[in-house]
Amino acid sequence: MTERRRDPTTGEWRMFASHRQDRTFLPTEEQCPLCPTRPGRPPTEIPLPAFDVVVFENRFPSLVAKPPDPDVVGSELYQVAPSYGANEVVVYSDDHHLELADMEVGKLARIVEVWADRYAALADRSDVDYVLIFENRGEAMGVTLHHPHGQIYAYPEVPARPLLELATATAHLEQGGTCVFCDVVARERADGVRVVAQNRSFLAFVPFAARYPYEVHVTAHRHAPSLLDLSDPERADLAALLKVVLSGFDRMFGFRLPYVMAMHQAPTADHRWLPVSHLHLEFLPPHRTATKLKYLAGSELGGGAYLNDTRPEATAAALRAAAAATPGKV
Amino acid sequence: MTERRRDPTTGEWRMFASHRQDRTFLPTEEQCPLCPTRPGRPPTEIPLPAFDVVVFENRFPSLVAKPPDPDVVGSELYQVAPSYGANEVVVYSDDHHLELADMEVGKLARIVEVWADRYAALADRSDVDYVLIFENRGEAMGVTLHHPHGQIYAYPEVPARPLLELATATAHLEQGGTCVFCDVVARERADGVRVVAQNRSFLAFVPFAARYPYEVHVTAHRHAPSLLDLSDPERADLAALLKVVLSGFDRMFGFRLPYVMAMHQAPTADHRWLPVSHLHLEFLPPHRTATKLKYLAGSELGGGAYLNDTRPEATAAALRAAAAATPGKV
Repeated sequence: MTERRRDPTTGEWRMFASHRQDRTFLPTEEQCPLCPTRPGRPPTEIPLPAFDVVVFENRFPSLVAKPPDPDVVGSELYQVAPSYGANEVVVYSDDHHLELADMEVGKLARIVEVWADRYAALADRSDVDYVLIFENRGEAMGVTLHHPHGQIYAYPEVPARPLLELATATAHLEQGGTCVFCDVVARERADGVRVVAQNRSFLAFVPFAARYPYEVHVTAHRHAPSLLDLSDPERADLAALLKVVLSGFDRMFGFRLPYVMAMHQAPTADHRWLPVSHLHLEFLPPHRTATKLKYLAGSELGGGAYLNDTRPEATAAALRAAAAATPGKV
Repeated sequence: MTERRRDPTTGEWRMFASHRQDRTFLPTEEQCPLCPTRPGRPPTEIPLPAFDVVVFENRFPSLVAKPPDPDVVGSELYQVAPSYGANEVVVYSDDHHLELADMEVGKLARIVEVWADRYAALADRSDVDYVLIFENRGEAMGVTLHHPHGQIYAYPEVPARPLLELATATAHLEQGGTCVFCDVVARERADGVRVVAQNRSFLAFVPFAARYPYEVHVTAHRHAPSLLDLSDPERADLAALLKVVLSGFDRMFGFRLPYVMAMHQAPTADHRWLPVSHLHLEFLPPHRTATKLKYLAGSELGGGAYLNDTRPEATAAALRAAAAATPGKV
């Protein structure tokens, strides 16, 4: 059973994929399906003895190019749709232990190139309206494979969270004539108190109304709707700033900080969104201290109202100090 | 620092309360602040040797009747507001181990009465627009005190999640002239395949587009906007059905199933929402199997698109069987 269903009380589409219950769960390093295939060993997902960056379709997908017919019959109240789209896995390197935070900037820049290529390729598909590049890192975020990797979901419609941003940005544009993300970047650069790090092209900051104590957004200074709008030097700047932010996270906490990363870019089917689409990456780490997690509970899940136990200006100062200690050039 | 800030890119209001970092964290049973005060012992939060149900203000609140001035100066882009409202703790009983699932139905009915009383009292306050009654149960949901208790947040505006439901229900009403929750209840009772249990006044079912594998909604059959609209027999029916659902959860899994419970009722300041306000309780258990959790990660947090690895009709059948084995009358 692989299908999508619409919640009639919120209008949100949800994905269902019952075969995913059987997916590979925390295999040992010897059984890692994301490592290269070694001579004399059974093949992994990647039939190569070594590789730089590899992208392949998720073996346990919730969105596919040729979805089956839905399992249930829909109605006006209970709408059902086939699971058009794609789920891809981006294996960052053939090293089972090499995290984004520990890579050379040149290697990170190649991953940015791969993200841009996959965004372009999926955007070309007629069944894809939105491409979400993301990474779930750490067991606290539910990772089922330890080998560092990211994912890409190509949805057949703009999903709820980017859609809310686009709608809010549209209202802001209609009211004042400006892109809200451009305004936020300008304000953050002027204030400085929530800035974690920046370079010529990108700004890393703790949002003014952050949901998580150590939430960091990495936003293009100028109004670039997607990775495809970036010049080569801008892409290199993104890679360099990611290195600073991610190694700062780990240095400050003293361990590999778990997080969800999600990249918001322009919807791929409807170009009317371009004036309010502004490339940014959101890092959501669940830790509120080294030993305590922020849980989404009654107010967040039941109310949609986030409660943050820290001052964004205070957590930004701590992250800024950690980021400043990064070796190498930003 | 206790204040509210608006996210300019989503329009959502978030709560900030930095003193909460120091709140009591998983004390031993001997140090439980929710137990009665025993002779010769230092006083707990409750200066009584025994009690039935007790409600008091959270010692580490994010919303209060007399909030301090915000810590930062707001602007049109970055809006700030005082944290008007209330955070209350509902201690279900003086027994440190007595969970809702294990109570007599008569005791559950008294808790329903307390919920109704607090909803009415908070609704009367001019600084309160919405009352959210909820429970976070289990360490998997971030509980910091084990003594069974619920919470009540009284917000100064309708928070994002209920607001989305109300807006969606308004569109449904304008289109077809009916309440979407009334339509859902009628459809679920007719279909039967997602029903977990029901009695004269309430229906428990796995939603058609459930976010969580074992998500259960308990919804009034008729269009009751809040607990205040229920007759005494209807309140007793709610208590009886809660007993069946919650003991079914624990029986099926063989342990105390963690969950977030959130009760959606009518906003308290604006009576124009009454035609689309329909009392329901949402139970969100994070388990997808006895040993594995459903994590909110890239697609959910970054995209707002939930992925469910189970068929709602299948999990409903399993829960229905467990609920049917509940001793006593439904």
